[in-house]
Amino acid sequence: MLKSLLRKNDARIVFLVMDGVGGIRNRDFPKTALESAKTPNLDMIASESACGRITPISAGMTPGSGPAHFSLFGYDPFLPENDAGRGVIEVTGVGFELKSSDIAIRGNFATIDEKGILTDRRAGRIPHEEGERICEKLGAKIKKIDDVEIIIMPVREYRFGIVLRGKGLSPLIEETDPQVTGRRPLDPAATAPEGARTASILTRLVKMINEVLIDEKKANTALLRGISQKPSIEPFNERYGLKAAAVAAYPLYRGVARLCGMDLFDTGFTPAEEFETVRSIYGGDHDFFFIHIKKTDSYGEDGNIEGKVKVIEEVDAAIPLLMGIDPDVLIVTGDHSTPCAMKGHSWHPVPFMIRSKFCGIDASRGFSETECDKGSLGVFPALSIMELALANAGKLKKYGA
Amino acid sequence: MLKSLLRKNDARIVFLVMDGVGGIRNRDFPKTALESAKTPNLDMIASESACGRITPISAGMTPGSGPAHFSLFGYDPFLPENDAGRGVIEVTGVGFELKSSDIAIRGNFATIDEKGILTDRRAGRIPHEEGERICEKLGAKIKKIDDVEIIIMPVREYRFGIVLRGKGLSPLIEETDPQVTGRRPLDPAATAPEGARTASILTRLVKMINEVLIDEKKANTALLRGISQKPSIEPFNERYGLKAAAVAAYPLYRGVARLCGMDLFDTGFTPAEEFETVRSIYGGDHDFFFIHIKKTDSYGEDGNIEGKVKVIEEVDAAIPLLMGIDPDVLIVTGDHSTPCAMKGHSWHPVPFMIRSKFCGIDASRGFSETECDKGSLGVFPALSIMELALANAGKLKKYGA
Repeated sequence: MLKSLLRKNDARIVFLVMDGVGGIRNRDFPKTALESAKTPNLDMIASESACGRITPISAGMTPGSGPAHFSLFGYDPFLPENDAGRGVIEVTGVGFELKSSDIAIRGNFATIDEKGILTDRRAGRIPHEEGERICEKLGAKIKKIDDVEIIIMPVREYRFGIVLRGKGLSPLIEETDPQVTGRRPLDPAATAPEGARTASILTRLVKMINEVLIDEKKANTALLRGISQKPSIEPFNERYGLKAAAVAAYPLYRGVARLCGMDLFDTGFTPAEEFETVRSIYGGDHDFFFIHIKKTDSYGEDGNIEGKVKVIEEVDAAIPLLMGIDPDVLIVTGDHSTPCAMKGHSWHPVPFMIRSKFCGIDASRGFSETECDKGSLGVFPALSIMELALANAGKLKKYGA
Repeated sequence: MLKSLLRKNDARIVFLVMDGVGGIRNRDFPKTALESAKTPNLDMIASESACGRITPISAGMTPGSGPAHFSLFGYDPFLPENDAGRGVIEVTGVGFELKSSDIAIRGNFATIDEKGILTDRRAGRIPHEEGERICEKLGAKIKKIDDVEIIIMPVREYRFGIVLRGKGLSPLIEETDPQVTGRRPLDPAATAPEGARTASILTRLVKMINEVLIDEKKANTALLRGISQKPSIEPFNERYGLKAAAVAAYPLYRGVARLCGMDLFDTGFTPAEEFETVRSIYGGDHDFFFIHIKKTDSYGEDGNIEGKVKVIEEVDAAIPLLMGIDPDVLIVTGDHSTPCAMKGHSWHPVPFMIRSKFCGIDASRGFSETECDKGSLGVFPALSIMELALANAGKLKKYGA
């Protein structure tokens, strides 16, 4: 229905996502990070915006970052066509272009002792350069198993990606991470008969990896997770008529964006660097800009409210860079809440604001949980954001006479 | 589910719809019409009501009047059984009782030059009396094509209705309005093989109309739009156990109300006249009263905030007439927003209030966007209004033990 109402114009949409930005108050945390932070620029935007809160998935569902971002972009993560496995997301996120018949796997380098017992599931969190060196070493030795091409690529630190390219492969394979140390890694077991051949190839692959890495002190084996195949996600431009750019530093978010058909841009990690990247491409032929700020979530996971406040204030300080390009539609929100009080993702609705010429200014005077609760948008599903964004951009025609 | 919970009692529901009443604030319009208007009576009702905002269709969808009203009455306009074409709505709105096999068409009188090129798509907006005269002229000359009966009726000004009554007719015909002047009207073309015969009848009908109107200066042809067949909409009394009366002056709203099974009442155009009409039938056997105020929308479409404010104040001044009958449940809302700032329908949520003995008074102290944002109902879909109305009327039993 939405598609039949799309209308082209020159308006551009900037969609700023502060990962896990939402928080909660309780006795130990009398203020959320957003309430504690000094955010004159975000508050100014709020006073010119329509505000509310978004429910990432549903009232009590705590989402991972993948499903939460698919929701933000209007793709119901529960629909099979949008169900991207972690392997697919991560290899896509480092720029690998998957074919629909490929099998993508998220690998974790890990440590086993001489008896093959797992002693560290993350290989002592080896630095990124170590991960790169080991991937290169593996790639030089392991290129094919039977007629199946094997492609190995670094992702971040101890995490890497594996792609199997060939005919008749299946993703119906159990993960090999036993989730605890003190046990052997599991065998790659097929969960259905059509997975048998792929399971046997993966069993041989793990054996080959162990042989190549036998002299490594930390990363001497690999655990295989998120074994998956590329879903047939409808590209952003077909779905919304938007040419989308993603400015995100971390592979997972880059992966989700790319799977939705966005073009990926390289960027620094700080808010100012990311906003500068947007400025450098704004005015070209993209009309949708997804910007992802990671550290709000990381500090939330650590329960470090000072750290979270500091990142929010960094974002606020950099906001004039964004306002300088005067986007026709500006959205600021998060993919989910990561309350410091909980040290993890949560289900709580996330502050949301949308600013455009015709957004409809409401009573909210700041960007925080409490101020957004005074807004005109109420609490609404993240899945509705894109429709609202298109409406504010003047890109949706009237339905019916 | 709702139907199994219905309970009969004597309570009566008055549902006042101010078309397009919602607005937005921006730099050019620092107050909405509702915020600018002096509305002591509506504010008094708000202070005794549960308030909130309704989403006409979905977060960013701007509805036409037809779908917006079906939503208000609890009929999802996206379901095929509720999908009424404009032809059906308009001829129903002027009191014509369609059979399910009839084809209904909305006609626009228009002007063509001697070469058949369209010079005015609305025939110079001829007055209503002219439209009536021309319809009479056509009706006297055109009665049948083959075995198909042709019924022609005035609607308003340059708009009229055509009904084809006969066997084997199909609505699968393209509209003939090319949407721009300087071109010939399109031929009535079938969009599927079963439309071929009807298309041929309509082609002959247009030729006959042109012949009859050859001496007219302005209305010398007709454009055919909204070619449609009556959908099988579940009547209001079966759906809700309510005997419904519609007090509306304009054909479209009368049409939607009639298609939902409401009884139509003739009324004057001013709020006071419409409320008097309700008073005159209140106490009879109807227990649901839909009242439609048109001019709030018209002034919104013109961007005329003084005009919109004035109509709202006229409604407010007439409110004592409604309060005099002391309805058990009183609902005041709009079908959608028509912000003066946008000169057109919009997606923005519409102020809503419901007053009954058990509505639950909340913090809202006036009937406006900002005051309704303080209410207890939040932002909710228009499709839920009827359930809420029935609950407030004591007409819904408890679900489950």
